[in-house]
Amino acid sequence: MHIPKLISAALFLLPLYLNAEEVLDQNVRDEAKALIAQSFQSDLGYQIIESLTTEVGQRLAGTEAEARARDWGVAKFKQLGFKNVRIEPFQVDHWERHSEHAEITSPFPQKLMITALGGSIATDSAGIVGQVVRFENLQALKDAPMKGLKGKIVFVDEYMTRTQDGSGYGVAVKKRSGAAVEAGKRGAAAALIRSVGTDHHRFPHTGQMTYDQNVVKVPIAALSAPDADQLHRALGRGDVEVKLQIDVQSYGKSQSGNVIAEIPGVTDEIVIIGAHLDSWDLGTGAVDDGAGIGITVGAAKLILDMNKKPRRTIRVVMFGAEEVGLVGAIAYAKKHANELDRHVVGAESDFGAGQIWRFETRFSDSKLHKAEAMHKVLSPLGIALGSNDASGGPDMGPLRMLGMPVVTLKQNGWDYFDLHHTPNDTFDKISADDIAQNVAAYAAFVWMAANMQGDFREP
Amino acid sequence: MHIPKLISAALFLLPLYLNAEEVLDQNVRDEAKALIAQSFQSDLGYQIIESLTTEVGQRLAGTEAEARARDWGVAKFKQLGFKNVRIEPFQVDHWERHSEHAEITSPFPQKLMITALGGSIATDSAGIVGQVVRFENLQALKDAPMKGLKGKIVFVDEYMTRTQDGSGYGVAVKKRSGAAVEAGKRGAAAALIRSVGTDHHRFPHTGQMTYDQNVVKVPIAALSAPDADQLHRALGRGDVEVKLQIDVQSYGKSQSGNVIAEIPGVTDEIVIIGAHLDSWDLGTGAVDDGAGIGITVGAAKLILDMNKKPRRTIRVVMFGAEEVGLVGAIAYAKKHANELDRHVVGAESDFGAGQIWRFETRFSDSKLHKAEAMHKVLSPLGIALGSNDASGGPDMGPLRMLGMPVVTLKQNGWDYFDLHHTPNDTFDKISADDIAQNVAAYAAFVWMAANMQGDFREP
Repeated sequence: MHIPKLISAALFLLPLYLNAEEVLDQNVRDEAKALIAQSFQSDLGYQIIESLTTEVGQRLAGTEAEARARDWGVAKFKQLGFKNVRIEPFQVDHWERHSEHAEITSPFPQKLMITALGGSIATDSAGIVGQVVRFENLQALKDAPMKGLKGKIVFVDEYMTRTQDGSGYGVAVKKRSGAAVEAGKRGAAAALIRSVGTDHHRFPHTGQMTYDQNVVKVPIAALSAPDADQLHRALGRGDVEVKLQIDVQSYGKSQSGNVIAEIPGVTDEIVIIGAHLDSWDLGTGAVDDGAGIGITVGAAKLILDMNKKPRRTIRVVMFGAEEVGLVGAIAYAKKHANELDRHVVGAESDFGAGQIWRFETRFSDSKLHKAEAMHKVLSPLGIALGSNDASGGPDMGPLRMLGMPVVTLKQNGWDYFDLHHTPNDTFDKISADDIAQNVAAYAAFVWMAANMQGDFREP
Repeated sequence: MHIPKLISAALFLLPLYLNAEEVLDQNVRDEAKALIAQSFQSDLGYQIIESLTTEVGQRLAGTEAEARARDWGVAKFKQLGFKNVRIEPFQVDHWERHSEHAEITSPFPQKLMITALGGSIATDSAGIVGQVVRFENLQALKDAPMKGLKGKIVFVDEYMTRTQDGSGYGVAVKKRSGAAVEAGKRGAAAALIRSVGTDHHRFPHTGQMTYDQNVVKVPIAALSAPDADQLHRALGRGDVEVKLQIDVQSYGKSQSGNVIAEIPGVTDEIVIIGAHLDSWDLGTGAVDDGAGIGITVGAAKLILDMNKKPRRTIRVVMFGAEEVGLVGAIAYAKKHANELDRHVVGAESDFGAGQIWRFETRFSDSKLHKAEAMHKVLSPLGIALGSNDASGGPDMGPLRMLGMPVVTLKQNGWDYFDLHHTPNDTFDKISADDIAQNVAAYAAFVWMAANMQGDFREP
């Protein structure tokens, strides 16, 4: 065992012997507890989700709908009484889906349900007809020889594992990112993947794909799980020919933006929370990520209604263009590079609408007693203390990589990938009770982080 | 209380004091029990559903796909060793869906998910744009004045009740049948209904609609439940304008047919079972009604494999064109009018893939002791004895109305209308264990009915 690990473990045990008051004033703790109680008297978070998903609907990055979502965000922040409400614009690649069609043409003619992946090129209007070659997973395709796939349609049939913490996603998403490039390298005409999802409904899951500038681009789409099953069964009986027609379009650069509001604090330090405002174009983005918008704006509004000025400024960001590559998060980190050291801690809510079950941090080891102190307040919500390797959520990634401490209020993601990136991501999937629990945890965390003595970085 | 009811009640009690052997020979009972045991050693019913849904897929009445399904049926019957395999052709109205598109154009532009109802006319290619007028249910639309809806889009937002026995369907389906006529009478431009379904997924449910020759025809489509919710929420904020583009086409008459096979008996009497071979065009018709095909053909095959000639002929019918108005069932009843009195009893399996929980009959009151005797054999499958007003299933309707006794082996329909008539009706929704229970019950019932002394009619 390495010495540094022993030191780290010793530091982790330390706070058990410290008085919580030394890091968290009694009145701040009491206020955090009052916020938790208040949250369960309110359905504000839930109502914010209802408003966004009804009054805007789907809001793909770079589209007029995403622009309407920003207008909605500005109006909502102002209506709720936040300060310094503004849009910070940036440019984003604008891609749109028009229509998709897939069918088995031989030997068993029948329609298949697909969705083009975000960023895919189109087929020509006549479509592509080709023999399907199945690969059990992306690695099997990577291991395939460079010859023998010319004109074929590659089918990567990799399954995703259902997990509470979403750890199955990172594995499964590699096929979504990588299949078109591997197919293109081998001369295939197109690529199909089994949807990145854990369900057995007939909605295919979209999501961003990537090309390699040095490899021929081929169109790529996802099959719903039952359609992937069907294609697999048909292939078990012999050769299968599929026709694909994918009508999508890239429009070059378009405007996007982050919508920002604040509860000004006494100092110039910042606690940043947020969620992403854009969604995929199939559902109304209730779970991904209307929920996060409702949770974080709702939590900040509870704090606002306390009428107590926090020590640190609480900044709430509705990030634009997350789904197409964290474009808003990167723009934010660039624009705020000069005040990065004043960003004390950050957390994004972007893992659906399930209850929070774990409080994860990424603090300096020497500041872990502060995680312990905050966790004591969150614990009655059924929240365990997790490890110190939190991601902070996708849009906190660029700031985290630049050294900002982060927190993840980890939600139960068991069902998340049943809905994720499908038309089925709509408001009826949201539970008001679960959102209230999320709002409670965020409000309490943010209030404690904004008023705590000292920060979470290395001394 | 009426005297006839008392007599009826007395007859109902009678069999409790009869020896079951008097109506059902010990060896027939033993053979029926052996069929039940055998069913749970086999996945034949499940494999038949797999074969139909994979090798044919969706099979709308009158299409080339339904013709392929008939070829599949003939080949399957022959392969399994049935006798007198044949197709009895008939004509059917041939209608097809090409595409649908719906969106809120004002005040919150967003796409809605709809499906045209079977038989609907198309909009012109530019579509219809109109203000939406919501009615809580069909009755409210019927009660509306004849003026005031000109150019509007009528929206009938009636809910359906989830029930084990499917009794919510009869109520809810009235809006599907009647909304276009009521809208047309009032000069509306089009009609939308909340899907006839019990789910909260984003698949709209299709199904046959009807026109009145004396009323202007208007296009009609169903919204998914979340889209109906969304439209309702939007209407709560003021006027809403929707655009509908429905591209469907009627092709006049086309050929359909019933596929028939037999296990010849000693006498010329017939026990008829079956299911419908056609499906809607959205899913692969696994639950509706691939399951029924698998259950009834699987049950008959178990009997065939006993290598014992039944007293009565067992006739298995794969009905064509059920979904579009029981066209195959009516054609069968017409064609077999001269042998109707030799049809001893009939049963169709067309209520999904759930387990059977009730044995219902429609026998002469004087023959109810036979229902009791058969039920004793079925009881270990968890099947209760139900009332004596069975429907026998949709395709038994014409024969039942002509006097044929029927049986309903009632399935649990709690989840049936989550999937019914949607793209989500696919093979992955089928449980092999549940199908085996169905096959067991059908095999035992059919064997008893085919070998029982006497019939089920009035003496």
